[in-house]
Amino acid sequence: MDKIFRDALKGLEACYHGGSIDKVRLDFSTSLNPLGPPPSIAETVRSLSISDLSLYPESDSRSVCYSIANSQKLAPDEVLLGNGASELLFMIPLIAIEKGDIALIPSPTYGEYSRAVLMMGGNISYYPLLREDDFRLQIDSFTETIDEIMPKLVFLCNPNNPTGEYLDRSAVLDILEACRKRDTILVIDEAYVDLSPKKWYSDDLIQNGNLIIVRSLTKSFSCAGIRIGYLVSDKKIISALKAVKIPWNVTILGQKVALALIDELEYLKKGVELVEREKAYLLHALGKLPVYAIQSDANFILVDLKGRSAASINEKLLERGIYLRDCASFHLPDFVRIGIRKHEDNVELVEALTEILGVEEV
Amino acid sequence: MDKIFRDALKGLEACYHGGSIDKVRLDFSTSLNPLGPPPSIAETVRSLSISDLSLYPESDSRSVCYSIANSQKLAPDEVLLGNGASELLFMIPLIAIEKGDIALIPSPTYGEYSRAVLMMGGNISYYPLLREDDFRLQIDSFTETIDEIMPKLVFLCNPNNPTGEYLDRSAVLDILEACRKRDTILVIDEAYVDLSPKKWYSDDLIQNGNLIIVRSLTKSFSCAGIRIGYLVSDKKIISALKAVKIPWNVTILGQKVALALIDELEYLKKGVELVEREKAYLLHALGKLPVYAIQSDANFILVDLKGRSAASINEKLLERGIYLRDCASFHLPDFVRIGIRKHEDNVELVEALTEILGVEEV
Repeated sequence: MDKIFRDALKGLEACYHGGSIDKVRLDFSTSLNPLGPPPSIAETVRSLSISDLSLYPESDSRSVCYSIANSQKLAPDEVLLGNGASELLFMIPLIAIEKGDIALIPSPTYGEYSRAVLMMGGNISYYPLLREDDFRLQIDSFTETIDEIMPKLVFLCNPNNPTGEYLDRSAVLDILEACRKRDTILVIDEAYVDLSPKKWYSDDLIQNGNLIIVRSLTKSFSCAGIRIGYLVSDKKIISALKAVKIPWNVTILGQKVALALIDELEYLKKGVELVEREKAYLLHALGKLPVYAIQSDANFILVDLKGRSAASINEKLLERGIYLRDCASFHLPDFVRIGIRKHEDNVELVEALTEILGVEEV
Repeated sequence: MDKIFRDALKGLEACYHGGSIDKVRLDFSTSLNPLGPPPSIAETVRSLSISDLSLYPESDSRSVCYSIANSQKLAPDEVLLGNGASELLFMIPLIAIEKGDIALIPSPTYGEYSRAVLMMGGNISYYPLLREDDFRLQIDSFTETIDEIMPKLVFLCNPNNPTGEYLDRSAVLDILEACRKRDTILVIDEAYVDLSPKKWYSDDLIQNGNLIIVRSLTKSFSCAGIRIGYLVSDKKIISALKAVKIPWNVTILGQKVALALIDELEYLKKGVELVEREKAYLLHALGKLPVYAIQSDANFILVDLKGRSAASINEKLLERGIYLRDCASFHLPDFVRIGIRKHEDNVELVEALTEILGVEEV
């Protein structure tokens, strides 16, 4: 019976993700805008009519693409909408990876890049980010690796999940240059970029090809239940992606909400301010505990528990209805990732952690 | 630059679909439940809260799978939910088709099966359905073909789009038997089954493997904007499909609506009654026009325009705000497919066609 399946499926398994644990009152395992969804979403949902629901959505979400293109100074055929960023990330190996092709992926990072590549029969070369470097990417050595192994794809999560490092424009340009030399496609997953205070405009980099930038409205606007992501790239790559895209991939509600969100820049600004204030609070508070918090440019913080297992800490936190992202699936079993929430929630977390871990002896 | 793409992408293009044409008042190009969405959907949408929207949906829609399994006498791990049936149809070649593998597909039928197979580098063997047979599938010759070419996949749309034939249990059993002998997976797309008066229970056929049955709630309950489909199969195939499934593929709204719809059997019954009454009306009326309507077990009718082009008829209908499915993309440029609507709409269509085509001379 097993010969009915493709070879690439052997050992391929669904990834573990945070969230969706029952009885969690304060969920720090997801990393969404701590302000929650903007009020405009509620209005959009209220305005949905029965006849909206019975019509097919635009198969290629063209109205949303036009609107995003307009706001980002792009052409509409340089934008593609997805059923969450995940759908888009899974489509990319479909256009680029033949059996045996190599993808280069820093590690630790988001697990779905690997799965999408393995699914197509590709091989993965992991580039290790080291604890002694605070998991920072060593650009020179990374570009040398690209030059050497000539991967078909390079995945960069920027800011990186779970380490929080956000590469600046010049670092990304160096990597992109190395990719172009080898006809490699660079995939930058900017799922968390909208909540970083250091956000820089990257869209113009697509002009010379070999680059796909994936973004998520899910996290920026805390609307994970609706599933909206988009990517920007050059027309040739977009056209290849459209050839493998399923029809009607984004629902009517997703398209309507996306249209409403594109102009919510002020809301993002408030989200970033809240994240920065609370990040400072958490880093200061964590500094008094016997753990080590990695500096972060994102809306989450990776914390080294210094030998304690994340599972045991989470077990104790769960008694209080609190839950962190156990980083075992990132191969970091004694690390947790804390998604930054509103102040009162963060205070409660710090109090709970202080009780559980004790204050560090000086 | 082109060498960055997989070979399989050459010549691969998005399919044409009906619907979404501006200025259409009466759209007969889609084939949905003519009753429209049931009132329970409106309630479900009204009950959506902001906090629903900000939570991740269940990544594998497990509550809906439990509920479907329960109503169909299946186990929960024999059910998989999709972002419309299309997503599920595209996942199937991902588990089964290696470069050069063959899929057997009757023609004419729904175009996305081919695209999904070609995307994976598979080859397609089309089994011709002939006009002189009213496009009916010749079961013996079809099973012989399976035996001979040993395809990895066989796709059957049942009832078939656009021809309307619905194979009975014994015909499907013959085909399934032939597939099992060759370790072929049979994919039965039952997107239109809920609106057929001859619907028979097929779920028990999955027990001995090699079978995937795909269904669409979109068409049964006229909620195309929400995107909900599901498939049933044995645990081994479901587990392979889960390995290639994107996380959170069905939105919160999709999952909530699916839960509400599972118990709407009475509504489907009313839909089937309306379809049958109106089908009889349309077939009788079309019988007086200089065209030939193929008998249909589904909620649409394929009509041979006897040499007139569908494009020219549609052009004249569009002046009246009416639109039919031009079957050129099915390689039937002088055929249209009529999705059965409510009585007053069908009357208007018949009047318009009578004016455009004239009554047949006897």
